[in-house]
Amino acid sequence: MRTSIATVCLSGTLTQKMQACAAAGFDGIEVFEPDLVAAPESPEEIHALSRRLGLTLDLFQPFRDAEGVDPATFAANLRRAEAKLALMRRLGMDTMLVCSNVATATIDDDAVFAAQLRELGDLAASYDVRLAYEALAWGRFVDDYRRAWQVVERADHPNVGVCLDSFHILSRGHDPKEIEQIPGDKVFFLQLADAPLLSMDVLSWSRHHRLFPGEGGFDLAGFLAHVLRAGYAGPLSLEVFNDTFRQTDPDRTARQALRSLRWLEDQAARHLGSEVGPGVARLPDVGEPSGVDFVEVRAEDAGEVEVVLAQLGFTFRGRHRSKAVGLWTQGEARVVLNEQQARGAAPAVAAVGVEVTDPDASAARANRLLAPPVHRRTYAGEERLAAFSAPDGTEVFLGRVPDGPDATWTGEFRLGTTPAGPDLVTHVDHVNLVQPWQHYDEAVLFYSSVLGLAPQAPLDVAGPAGLVRSKVMRSADGRIRLALNLQPAGLRDRLPQHVAFACDDVVTLAQQARARGLRCLPVPDNYYDDLAARFDLDPALLATLRDLGLLYDRDGDGEFLHFYTATVGRVFFEVVERRGGYDGYGAANAPVRLAAQLATA
Amino acid sequence: MRTSIATVCLSGTLTQKMQACAAAGFDGIEVFEPDLVAAPESPEEIHALSRRLGLTLDLFQPFRDAEGVDPATFAANLRRAEAKLALMRRLGMDTMLVCSNVATATIDDDAVFAAQLRELGDLAASYDVRLAYEALAWGRFVDDYRRAWQVVERADHPNVGVCLDSFHILSRGHDPKEIEQIPGDKVFFLQLADAPLLSMDVLSWSRHHRLFPGEGGFDLAGFLAHVLRAGYAGPLSLEVFNDTFRQTDPDRTARQALRSLRWLEDQAARHLGSEVGPGVARLPDVGEPSGVDFVEVRAEDAGEVEVVLAQLGFTFRGRHRSKAVGLWTQGEARVVLNEQQARGAAPAVAAVGVEVTDPDASAARANRLLAPPVHRRTYAGEERLAAFSAPDGTEVFLGRVPDGPDATWTGEFRLGTTPAGPDLVTHVDHVNLVQPWQHYDEAVLFYSSVLGLAPQAPLDVAGPAGLVRSKVMRSADGRIRLALNLQPAGLRDRLPQHVAFACDDVVTLAQQARARGLRCLPVPDNYYDDLAARFDLDPALLATLRDLGLLYDRDGDGEFLHFYTATVGRVFFEVVERRGGYDGYGAANAPVRLAAQLATA
Repeated sequence: MRTSIATVCLSGTLTQKMQACAAAGFDGIEVFEPDLVAAPESPEEIHALSRRLGLTLDLFQPFRDAEGVDPATFAANLRRAEAKLALMRRLGMDTMLVCSNVATATIDDDAVFAAQLRELGDLAASYDVRLAYEALAWGRFVDDYRRAWQVVERADHPNVGVCLDSFHILSRGHDPKEIEQIPGDKVFFLQLADAPLLSMDVLSWSRHHRLFPGEGGFDLAGFLAHVLRAGYAGPLSLEVFNDTFRQTDPDRTARQALRSLRWLEDQAARHLGSEVGPGVARLPDVGEPSGVDFVEVRAEDAGEVEVVLAQLGFTFRGRHRSKAVGLWTQGEARVVLNEQQARGAAPAVAAVGVEVTDPDASAARANRLLAPPVHRRTYAGEERLAAFSAPDGTEVFLGRVPDGPDATWTGEFRLGTTPAGPDLVTHVDHVNLVQPWQHYDEAVLFYSSVLGLAPQAPLDVAGPAGLVRSKVMRSADGRIRLALNLQPAGLRDRLPQHVAFACDDVVTLAQQARARGLRCLPVPDNYYDDLAARFDLDPALLATLRDLGLLYDRDGDGEFLHFYTATVGRVFFEVVERRGGYDGYGAANAPVRLAAQLATA
Repeated sequence: MRTSIATVCLSGTLTQKMQACAAAGFDGIEVFEPDLVAAPESPEEIHALSRRLGLTLDLFQPFRDAEGVDPATFAANLRRAEAKLALMRRLGMDTMLVCSNVATATIDDDAVFAAQLRELGDLAASYDVRLAYEALAWGRFVDDYRRAWQVVERADHPNVGVCLDSFHILSRGHDPKEIEQIPGDKVFFLQLADAPLLSMDVLSWSRHHRLFPGEGGFDLAGFLAHVLRAGYAGPLSLEVFNDTFRQTDPDRTARQALRSLRWLEDQAARHLGSEVGPGVARLPDVGEPSGVDFVEVRAEDAGEVEVVLAQLGFTFRGRHRSKAVGLWTQGEARVVLNEQQARGAAPAVAAVGVEVTDPDASAARANRLLAPPVHRRTYAGEERLAAFSAPDGTEVFLGRVPDGPDATWTGEFRLGTTPAGPDLVTHVDHVNLVQPWQHYDEAVLFYSSVLGLAPQAPLDVAGPAGLVRSKVMRSADGRIRLALNLQPAGLRDRLPQHVAFACDDVVTLAQQARARGLRCLPVPDNYYDDLAARFDLDPALLATLRDLGLLYDRDGDGEFLHFYTATVGRVFFEVVERRGGYDGYGAANAPVRLAAQLATA
């Protein structure tokens, strides 16, 4: 389907926005009137620029407070409309958004709304312009798309149709199913926006917190399916008012925006199944990734990380045959230490490999979703893994699900040791990646659209330097869990990232690691006093926890035991044991961890 | 009255928070349990530190989900309570907050609540601890302070009283008047928080958006007056959950917090008038400032600013007798250009002088409100003005209201020109100061408490680099108007500040300024086309506006005509003409200005 985006979604001047939309690959734009008013370019220049960039100018918006007014006000509205229609002629545009009156309406009567829209329609027709009437969620009288359609039906004018906006419909909890009753050719325009599920006044929610599809909590695939069933064949257009996107790089936001539409179109096609029409594009079909292939830590000198991995029971499997890269493994947990780095680079998680059934299909999907590809030099006979850069710069590698216990690329590592076993660590439980605030929502969309991971409900963790918002992206079976932690904007130093290893006996592992000299993050005595007050713990278990510096959580019958290593550079490790189906991450313990990390930083 | 603050209001570790509270001058603190749990120090160390710092430990909080539960849960709660009471003994504390059950209550019965609180009270009595029962705004059954008091009255236990929290009461719109019916000695504790008037779920509002008194929209003076009438004699304590304060310098936040309490105590005393008791401290009484004394621009070389001022019709009044400082005036508008600056310092608004009736009283008030004093070197025979640093670093000088047309200190400037008149500019209309996001709420409190300015409703202005939140602080007669503009967090370069001059004939002034070579900020043609569509303007006026690059706004019968100069360093100037009682700032035109400034930057 054709794609479009309102210029209000992006930062910058009108021409900067247009350049960004064209570079990302959009087919068209909605011209948000204040962007044009503030532009030094004439309407003719904007028209000509759009032609050169290959962008259609799909919708002029918004025309406000048109209907439901007394005759004197309506006469003034006609005069105002004519000025805008003349402007649209200079822009070469043919569709104008008329949103339901919020300010000047005094007559709550469908007949009046319809008559005034009809008169506006006559005027618009003389300029070859169509009017798309939209019910704002906070419209004075018309605040429901079903009433807007009744008004349009009653106006019965070829130049008057409806505009449907997912936010205005879903934010109010209106059932989108009745969209299917509207003739497709009377849906003149479709605006799409997602949003987090907030409980606040709908106007502020709309103006500040909209998101691109896939970043929020609305069922937009279901919504779009209804619109397509109605027979709508116009562009899919985004209208997202968002405080963050208004101040970040428009080129980047435009790519993120187009990714959201491609993802949504695919989701709607899946939703429609055999009903889907020929114009709705699908993405390459890929299953969900089955596990973490490897985690890569980069540093000028990874020696300190090697010490910690050895203390945790990892085996050094050798050095890469052509690169300054080492491999450490335990069970199915593989850590790659890459020392091909600039002087002074401190250890940090730089890449995560995931195991997929069909790497080529996954790479094609990522390309289609505008994921920035990453190049890694490979020599003859070495396995070439496709890779893409996540919004925070973490590289995501697509590896093939291994046939045996080890990934095939591990054969490129030499002069290492054979694991002596038994391995207490079984696999990577989760990876915690710190996100700059500007890229948090983009990261959610990236991992859900490119890898098919599902966002879990966010939660806030109180640390001594601010609240850390955390959202886990996971596969259905839980074998991939990426925790996205939002860096507080006021914090100068970046929070550390971490890799959590799963094990079946964290007590034994902690004892062995201590015997090997591991420095754990210190846990205060007050924490154990509080544990004793909160849970009816077996005193022997409590003594063991206190003795080994283990943390504890419980959820129903499930239990969670875990500990953290000290931080090396920008990374630390965690070892977790999940008992009885515990499915969380010990969030109640995170404030203790954050405080201890601040104290030992 | 004694002052206290919950440790959750501040960033840092528990001991850092305690140091900050003591340094600011608080009498005591509330120990927020998670801060203690995460602290490596033992309860005995915390107790000893509090003694050394001279801080009382006023309230241990919170004890959750105590009442309204089945017998088995209540038995577990008693066990949990006993562990916390033992901990409080180690801390040397005597009051614990019990907040109404939100999670485990199953029995909605005052008799059960009272009986269980009585049993908890018996246990607490054995530890010499008093329980302060608080109705959370989102409590499962008890969510109203009046019901909490009924429960406490029914419990009828000397160790069980109520805790009143302004947020929980005012956020729900509960009338605080009935507080006066509660015996003062049964109000065991008082927690104060302000908040912006938001329409959102009360839990999120409470957890993220609370503010210190004077920074939000609650009538806290009226609230506190009710509590004092009830006979409450305990500490005034702050409990402010706020995402910003959690991540900013705790020393600074603690000073801000104490400022808010001193201001509030004074406001409540005024509210009570002759009813006020002897323990309630007043601030020095000062009238509202009557005008802007001067605006000071600092730069290594202010030459470019001088050119602009001359073009606007200002007169050079001379150079200061002992400093590299020049004075330019027009009407009652005075601009001081201070070139005693470091190499490369670009022009920026560095200070604002205000005219007050009694500078000594105003300075005493500012000192009492912990405003950081600013030192300026003065020589024999020069006027010494007290000055304080506002949260954004702008220096605020307190000058005496002049007897004649000119401030007395202008006599220190020599070798200048005598104004030839007629002066078109009459005075400084407003000064626009850009605020870093961390200090925005603090700035509101600073200007309202120190200068007695009133905050106007905030509004958002959409610029090409983000939304700019703007709030005007003004005196009742409008002679002092400081517009605080919130710098978008994602914007690397600081937004410019500006000084707006009032005049009675902006058309003539613009013509004269143009003739003198002034470069105005260019206004796009599209803007005038839009003006013509929006307002039924006289074509001659529209032509004049377009010709001179003037902007226009209308509000009822009032009209606003204004223009902006180009930016020099970090400052630009505006000239405004208010017609027919127009009282705004042309906010509708600000996006056009921001876009033009970006384009010409």
